[in-house]
Amino acid sequence: MAGKEKGKISDAVIRRLPRYRRCLDGLMKAGVERISSGELSAMIGYTASQIRQDLNNFGGFGQQGYGYNVKSLYERIGEILGLDREYKMVIVGAGNLGSALVNYAKYQKWGFYIVAMFDVLPELIGTSINDTPVYSYTQLDQYLQENKIDIGVICTGKGAAPEVMDKLVAGGVKGIWNFAATDLSAPEGIPLENVHLSDSLNALTYYMLRSNPE
Amino acid sequence: MAGKEKGKISDAVIRRLPRYRRCLDGLMKAGVERISSGELSAMIGYTASQIRQDLNNFGGFGQQGYGYNVKSLYERIGEILGLDREYKMVIVGAGNLGSALVNYAKYQKWGFYIVAMFDVLPELIGTSINDTPVYSYTQLDQYLQENKIDIGVICTGKGAAPEVMDKLVAGGVKGIWNFAATDLSAPEGIPLENVHLSDSLNALTYYMLRSNPE
Repeated sequence: MAGKEKGKISDAVIRRLPRYRRCLDGLMKAGVERISSGELSAMIGYTASQIRQDLNNFGGFGQQGYGYNVKSLYERIGEILGLDREYKMVIVGAGNLGSALVNYAKYQKWGFYIVAMFDVLPELIGTSINDTPVYSYTQLDQYLQENKIDIGVICTGKGAAPEVMDKLVAGGVKGIWNFAATDLSAPEGIPLENVHLSDSLNALTYYMLRSNPE
Repeated sequence: MAGKEKGKISDAVIRRLPRYRRCLDGLMKAGVERISSGELSAMIGYTASQIRQDLNNFGGFGQQGYGYNVKSLYERIGEILGLDREYKMVIVGAGNLGSALVNYAKYQKWGFYIVAMFDVLPELIGTSINDTPVYSYTQLDQYLQENKIDIGVICTGKGAAPEVMDKLVAGGVKGIWNFAATDLSAPEGIPLENVHLSDSLNALTYYMLRSNPE
């Protein structure tokens, strides 16, 4: 479905695309219709040459001396990232982080529907968070059998995470978004993103040290 | 302080270091003393040549045919990332995400002390979360004047985020960790990390589409 892509795109490029898309979203809202790689560079901080190279991976968006059409580029990046369709998600672990995710209303606007949460705590089971029901973790297997879920989100502690991943995979999810503090590997064919919030904190302290030499 | 570094290290390398460190931590706990770049490659998924190149940025850790000393490499990476010292942090915004951060006990073990939180909601002000007091946002300026804070964490909505950033900078923080859904830029000399949880979700859907072609 993602036509015009030239061979394999590097992971680094993929991870820069959301940033481009946010910037383009802001430009659209400001009524900007065209933008050059130089102007994008000033806004995003990547070099103009890197921007041209990144975007060229997906077929020539820009025309020499004419710049990029903001709306087309925004839509094309969304299409590349799979944001032109809808996903059903479940979150396992209804603690603070799970609650933060389900409370982030934007996900729904972007096509990500969190349809159920699961937890082991009796005081959470049977409640709902931002209109999303919290079920018992013991119901997860059956729920996944009865409902087609695209993405499983793991917001448990690291101890429980491998079992949760196995259940999600057995239940037919197509991708896993893992926030447990452990690097999981899913079986071949099931993409998995390990999110470590502390990684960005460690990059921050690296730059702080260099910025404030003692 | 970070001796032996060869010129400017690329941002991509910096962002891979926490991953190396987590892997080395696991190896230490398993009693492994030495590891080759090939073995690290099998565990982490980067190529052995990339691993050697990455680690070579900080002075030769490994010796040909001998591998890396797990503990030394772990400690050296911690030193490079500034994890051999302590940081005092405040969190502005005591909602679910702020609560998730303050409840993550590991930060303290790693030298990150969250000493106060600030919010505008009367029902939160005066409470404490995981033993961390929640003060009124109106007290932030004074608190920062009276306490030396290293890192300010923004867990507010995007509308409030620029003002919060300005207050944190005026109050003397040395770095900012921003979770508000907007890309902030701090003044020169104040490193700032914009964390967008949805970026990893967008990478996930990219890989899901390619993994499950329709």
